[in-house]
Amino acid sequence: MTLADVGPEEFRRAGHELVDWVADYRLKVAGLPVRSPVAPGEVLAALPTAPPEGPEPLAALIADLDRIIVPGLTNVQHPRNFAWFPSNAALSSVLGDIVAGGLGALGISWQSAPALTELEQVICDWARQLCGLSDGWSGTIYDGASTASLVALLVAREVTTGGSQRRGGLQAEKAPLTVYCSADAHSSVAKAAMLAGYGEDNLRLVPVSRPGREMDVAALSALMAQDAASGRRPTAVVATAGTTATTAFDPLADVCEVADKFGAFVHVDAAMAGSAMLLPECRGLFDGIEGASSLVWNPHKWLGSILETSLFYVRQPDLLVSVMATGPSYLRSALDGSVVQYRDWGLPLGRRFRALRLWALLRLEGAEALRARLRRDLDHAQRFASVVQRAPGWDLVTPVQLQTLCVLHTPPGCDGDALDEHTLSWCEAVNASGQAHLTPALVDGRWVVRVSIGAETTEWDDVSQLWAVMQEQAAASRGLRP
Amino acid sequence: MTLADVGPEEFRRAGHELVDWVADYRLKVAGLPVRSPVAPGEVLAALPTAPPEGPEPLAALIADLDRIIVPGLTNVQHPRNFAWFPSNAALSSVLGDIVAGGLGALGISWQSAPALTELEQVICDWARQLCGLSDGWSGTIYDGASTASLVALLVAREVTTGGSQRRGGLQAEKAPLTVYCSADAHSSVAKAAMLAGYGEDNLRLVPVSRPGREMDVAALSALMAQDAASGRRPTAVVATAGTTATTAFDPLADVCEVADKFGAFVHVDAAMAGSAMLLPECRGLFDGIEGASSLVWNPHKWLGSILETSLFYVRQPDLLVSVMATGPSYLRSALDGSVVQYRDWGLPLGRRFRALRLWALLRLEGAEALRARLRRDLDHAQRFASVVQRAPGWDLVTPVQLQTLCVLHTPPGCDGDALDEHTLSWCEAVNASGQAHLTPALVDGRWVVRVSIGAETTEWDDVSQLWAVMQEQAAASRGLRP
Repeated sequence: MTLADVGPEEFRRAGHELVDWVADYRLKVAGLPVRSPVAPGEVLAALPTAPPEGPEPLAALIADLDRIIVPGLTNVQHPRNFAWFPSNAALSSVLGDIVAGGLGALGISWQSAPALTELEQVICDWARQLCGLSDGWSGTIYDGASTASLVALLVAREVTTGGSQRRGGLQAEKAPLTVYCSADAHSSVAKAAMLAGYGEDNLRLVPVSRPGREMDVAALSALMAQDAASGRRPTAVVATAGTTATTAFDPLADVCEVADKFGAFVHVDAAMAGSAMLLPECRGLFDGIEGASSLVWNPHKWLGSILETSLFYVRQPDLLVSVMATGPSYLRSALDGSVVQYRDWGLPLGRRFRALRLWALLRLEGAEALRARLRRDLDHAQRFASVVQRAPGWDLVTPVQLQTLCVLHTPPGCDGDALDEHTLSWCEAVNASGQAHLTPALVDGRWVVRVSIGAETTEWDDVSQLWAVMQEQAAASRGLRP
Repeated sequence: MTLADVGPEEFRRAGHELVDWVADYRLKVAGLPVRSPVAPGEVLAALPTAPPEGPEPLAALIADLDRIIVPGLTNVQHPRNFAWFPSNAALSSVLGDIVAGGLGALGISWQSAPALTELEQVICDWARQLCGLSDGWSGTIYDGASTASLVALLVAREVTTGGSQRRGGLQAEKAPLTVYCSADAHSSVAKAAMLAGYGEDNLRLVPVSRPGREMDVAALSALMAQDAASGRRPTAVVATAGTTATTAFDPLADVCEVADKFGAFVHVDAAMAGSAMLLPECRGLFDGIEGASSLVWNPHKWLGSILETSLFYVRQPDLLVSVMATGPSYLRSALDGSVVQYRDWGLPLGRRFRALRLWALLRLEGAEALRARLRRDLDHAQRFASVVQRAPGWDLVTPVQLQTLCVLHTPPGCDGDALDEHTLSWCEAVNASGQAHLTPALVDGRWVVRVSIGAETTEWDDVSQLWAVMQEQAAASRGLRP
């Protein structure tokens, strides 16, 4: 079939074929290597260097998907993907996105797509309710948590400076503005602080407590007091609910109390762990979150929406809008002021119909099934923690708060740099096997291996298989590097 | 059908149904009103306030799409959509996105998805070649041009300050940094300048020439010289290739020459008009673009990719990376340094498999067909310009550079505020009719109506129908408001 002009009927046929292709991919993914075996440049070399002048048949596209693209992917939808954090693309959410693509709605104003705007309002509120958050929060959908942290620090900057951007900008400010986060905060927080103009010198990495690695609030308080005393302006604290390396939870209530004394903005980065708010039994970890100014969590991680679905909530949408709004003539309408204009809630002007992914996920699966899946993963993590702790030579480096374990295998007499080498070596061997995928991280200056359980299709049998590969490769590595 | 657990086989069935639903929507869209007739809050009121506990059948979702969502959308895929700029979601590109959703690849590092990274490299290069740009440009895919302008101004800030973000930040800088754009630049440029910390006081809106409304380069030069003489630091010029209101083209060669004298960064915003670079006969409008530092154009507008597909090119990727890069332990790999890490090319850490949309668009349609469609639209615009100019009482306010016309209907003796009222009145009447959709804009303090031709399915007959409605409504309005 050649699709010179891809009209509705051609789309119907090709769409069916690609839906089938996707279904077949998901059926076979468990049999593929988790980590892509390709070398740098291999995909590049397999593709034509120039674009096609004439139309190509769908079959050619599908052949290249099979021959080049799939072998070139690390399969995060694989049941034995334990790397980074889960990045579930539930097929229910893919269904919602097919509709979004097909409608081709243009989200640049309420008027350009009323249903896009109002469904986003509804979905953000549904998600809020599922998380047990009060109705004092108003939400919108961002692409990711990096954007959320940047926006939060921009809003905080404008609050502290009384709207410097409408005058001489941050560069006209005298007393330096300072930002605080734990030493274990995500790299996007430092990036946001730098991009927002605070500068690395004004970013305070607050020490973490042992062994939980949560922010040391006494240290935070001392740093803020010291900065204030020396004429600096403590502007924002980014608290992490579930750090990337070890899933540590900063004590939100205490953080908010301290920040409040200095009039600082508190942003909560719950990118991964936010999904746990769906479970009442996990909400204790988020105690105090109602005192924060903004928060972000990514349903595109553990919960299962496809990517670029990040929920950003604020207590004061007016404040957000005052920093983000523009009012060009070509976007004005008679309804301005009486409707939500999401372009004034963040960085981009235009957006896709993002809410459909979550709408489809929540409606086709239902909240109960989603909670059951999250609980399954928590249970796997606890069971696996017991297994690891009982095994000679194996340890958990930090408490297991949710579904991610930080493990260490220590051969007799092995420590220091040799231990790091051993750790990275067996981890790489697991990944090279294609049987499972893990990623390492630095904790207290030493490499540990993260086992992040929670791919949508991961069952206990997959965890068991992972454990077998881990033991095998750690033993082999021990043999090589005593 | 209930999809309690949406596995591959349920997805196959539901996917076929939704693909058919999309095809049917596209077949019937020409018969729907272009602008949504819903009132604010109407969609909201039609949706449940709480999320579903149990799974719902696909049929319920589809029923709500038909009953609530579609009537709540302004149909920008409608052949008589002439509002804003074209926002084509070509079905070929939707096909590519179905694959992206289905694969669920995680673009956070080269290793997490080699094919995602390398196909993005290939596609950005294909697009570069199609535009006739030199191989001195390296590209990446952003969500939109607002992000591109923000990134460009952040990079410019760091160039001028020698990397202030790694020290005390912009707030530690003494001599104010200044930014320049034409008075007709897109609102996102001012937003970017404010968010990047320059401040409104340091944003210079350069006057535009008459009647073309391109940036007055002599005025730019004078402003930059004056700022430099008074100790300010001219940092960046944002030149627009195709402004939003009137599609004016700033003279890029002259702008670059002036900026160069002051060592200022030049970013080209070609968000809409960039597609015209595909046509050799239009490239004269972009003369001098090779002298710029960065440029953005959005294939998700006129060309036909679905939304959140914006191409950002830079001359010096190392510079971009030096501003955007972070290197957290949990993302490190042995291959760092030898591969492209797109997370270090912009704001977000993670990305979807964005390149697939453009890959499918270019391969299933072919470059020749895309160029033919763009030429069709240019031809429609020229033909329609002749029609308008010949009609008594009708005028074109600015030269027609591409496919957007700025029209004015002046009843005898009507001017000033009365003319504005008349203009907004007949434009609104056209939109309320549902027959066609137009958006007004302010030009020189007066409202004009923009006719932006270029929806994928717009044929000459649609333009003729628009013209009939315009004449009818302008006549009716004239009757009411002489």
